Amino acid sequence: MGLTEADRRVEAPPLPEGLDTPAVVVDLDRADANIRRMQRSMDARGVALRPHAKTHKSPFFARRQLEAGAVGLTVAVLGEGQVLADAGITDLFVAYPVWAVGAKADRLRDLAGRARLAVGVDSPEGAAQLGRALAGARDRPEVLIELDSGEGRTGTDVARVVTVARAVLDAGLVLRGVFTHGGHSYRGPDRVTGAAADERSTLEAAVDALAREGIEVAVVSAGSTPTAAVDGGPPITEERPGTYVFGDRQQVNLGGSDAAGLALVVAATVVSTSVAGGCVLDAGAKALAKDRPGWLDGHGVIAQLPGAVIRALYDHHAVVELPPDLPPPRVGDVVAVVPNHVCPVVNLTDELVLVRDGAVVDHLPVAARGLTR
Amino acid sequence: MGLTEADRRVEAPPLPEGLDTPAVVVDLDRADANIRRMQRSMDARGVALRPHAKTHKSPFFARRQLEAGAVGLTVAVLGEGQVLADAGITDLFVAYPVWAVGAKADRLRDLAGRARLAVGVDSPEGAAQLGRALAGARDRPEVLIELDSGEGRTGTDVARVVTVARAVLDAGLVLRGVFTHGGHSYRGPDRVTGAAADERSTLEAAVDALAREGIEVAVVSAGSTPTAAVDGGPPITEERPGTYVFGDRQQVNLGGSDAAGLALVVAATVVSTSVAGGCVLDAGAKALAKDRPGWLDGHGVIAQLPGAVIRALYDHHAVVELPPDLPPPRVGDVVAVVPNHVCPVVNLTDELVLVRDGAVVDHLPVAARGLTR
Repeated sequence: MGLTEADRRVEAPPLPEGLDTPAVVVDLDRADANIRRMQRSMDARGVALRPHAKTHKSPFFARRQLEAGAVGLTVAVLGEGQVLADAGITDLFVAYPVWAVGAKADRLRDLAGRARLAVGVDSPEGAAQLGRALAGARDRPEVLIELDSGEGRTGTDVARVVTVARAVLDAGLVLRGVFTHGGHSYRGPDRVTGAAADERSTLEAAVDALAREGIEVAVVSAGSTPTAAVDGGPPITEERPGTYVFGDRQQVNLGGSDAAGLALVVAATVVSTSVAGGCVLDAGAKALAKDRPGWLDGHGVIAQLPGAVIRALYDHHAVVELPPDLPPPRVGDVVAVVPNHVCPVVNLTDELVLVRDGAVVDHLPVAARGLTR
Repeated sequence: MGLTEADRRVEAPPLPEGLDTPAVVVDLDRADANIRRMQRSMDARGVALRPHAKTHKSPFFARRQLEAGAVGLTVAVLGEGQVLADAGITDLFVAYPVWAVGAKADRLRDLAGRARLAVGVDSPEGAAQLGRALAGARDRPEVLIELDSGEGRTGTDVARVVTVARAVLDAGLVLRGVFTHGGHSYRGPDRVTGAAADERSTLEAAVDALAREGIEVAVVSAGSTPTAAVDGGPPITEERPGTYVFGDRQQVNLGGSDAAGLALVVAATVVSTSVAGGCVLDAGAKALAKDRPGWLDGHGVIAQLPGAVIRALYDHHAVVELPPDLPPPRVGDVVAVVPNHVCPVVNLTDELVLVRDGAVVDHLPVAARGLTR
């Protein structure tokens, strides 16, 4: 295995001089263009855009998405929602089957008092627990029921959606809608169109099943960056892509990002060329993360070393295999790595170096970094 | 594939009640016992112990290691050294081929002024750059030359060690010794003894080659937790294991940790049982990290679900395959996951929940979390 054709088209933004590496660098103009492009696409389809904040984990980019026309933000965990609410961003959907007990229930009630909040539920037990946690609370989140559209992760199936909906209503909660995540789109470029179709057909069947019982829903929400690039059509009313804001190697291969629109790279220094046939970068697993789908070779694309494959990641070392015809890099050379998956990369770093035209314009703290609950 | 025999022996410490999950929990008595056991083993061999701080990333555990008898700490990056020096821990070795330019050179000079510092070098270019970065500096780190003993990552070979040593001396630096990391011990339980022998023989050959040129070294340093469990014998004077302080699933399988000595687990809640044959935990890749050697199946061992395999990790979901004969868990159950590799887990969390006898005694900030440079 080696790099793919899509890998070879990757165009990294220019790096500023003098970075202390490894450093996570974001090209602001590219990120803004990605935000505008996705919004235009959703506007053209008449679908609401509720971007997933788990990619950028920062009010700074959430605001830019709202200014472009997003209806609110999606988050994975309450902690991300709390950080956005602290910054005045208050239309939030926790797209996760929240199990609300103890401190988490306290935080849920607090966040519901400060935001127009919705949460996910995928079981009657989860709905009942939510009802118990919110008993007597003045402010209560609305609920969306998660459907499994083929990923096989979380989400009820269509046969049980009415049972879950009844449990939501029995718990005294407002049912806003249904949602799914066609995450099997990530299993390969040949899976994206099918996953988008699965999202649509699963949601349609769920809406129909609920309607037959007289239960109407306002929001029908789908989403992943690859499937959002495919127009699912009715009854989808909302999409929740996240990764599109920065893009990554995986997205370029899946058609979710434009190779020239990649907005985030990890700047790394060649620290060793001692072992023949390769070199070692100072961006290891603690900078690049180890996400690697089976259909991609290596742990990222190195813009300055075409054809090079990152064969192994240790905590602080990336071991690079160089193609025989490439002039080998020298110790001290600085390169830009396009990571396989950008979300865990952002979650690992305390700050993003914001650049425009290759010049540093700011250092942005990743406000929700490390918030896993 | 399924779990190994060693996996089935895993004994997780008891979890406290009422945790907001996912949470990283450390049993203090077990960690202290691990620290004492390793120190006793090194004392018995007459070898100095310089534990690697990249596992715990905190002065709290570094102090316990020093109190038990460690001669100093090893760090992977200057940032970890800065955090330890800030806390008064000032005998530090950066076991990494530091390329000292710009802000990194400034930080190196600063740290050398505050600590008895040594750094790694594996090339003449690295040595020369170090000399330039330290020209005129009052305080200068000493140098250890890294040797590759079979891992194929960083480190010069024995044939070039004299050339690198000459470059170190030409740069006006003091050569303290040689070091290696037999990281190929991690390639499987059958590789540990050989990797330890490779460490010893490589270091011996390097010491001999230097001695033939009249270059004497004071420190001959080896180390990884698995190989430190094997007595390499002379000329090794120092070992640098890190992971032993907490242990992890990989170490139990490699013989580097005792199954009953595992001190760190990730507490997770079952958030979904909607998909048949399995369940989903709220500890995903942003909590457990994706490190998985090819010889281990799944992403950790779940103490309360014997035989269960964590088939997939998403950012916030662990997808668990349950054995058919196991009573399935219920949504809301809390379990303890022994991670495959503990170092990236600690690096992901802002705090460790310290427990004794299953009761919370403190919350420890991970002081050097996220410091990759």
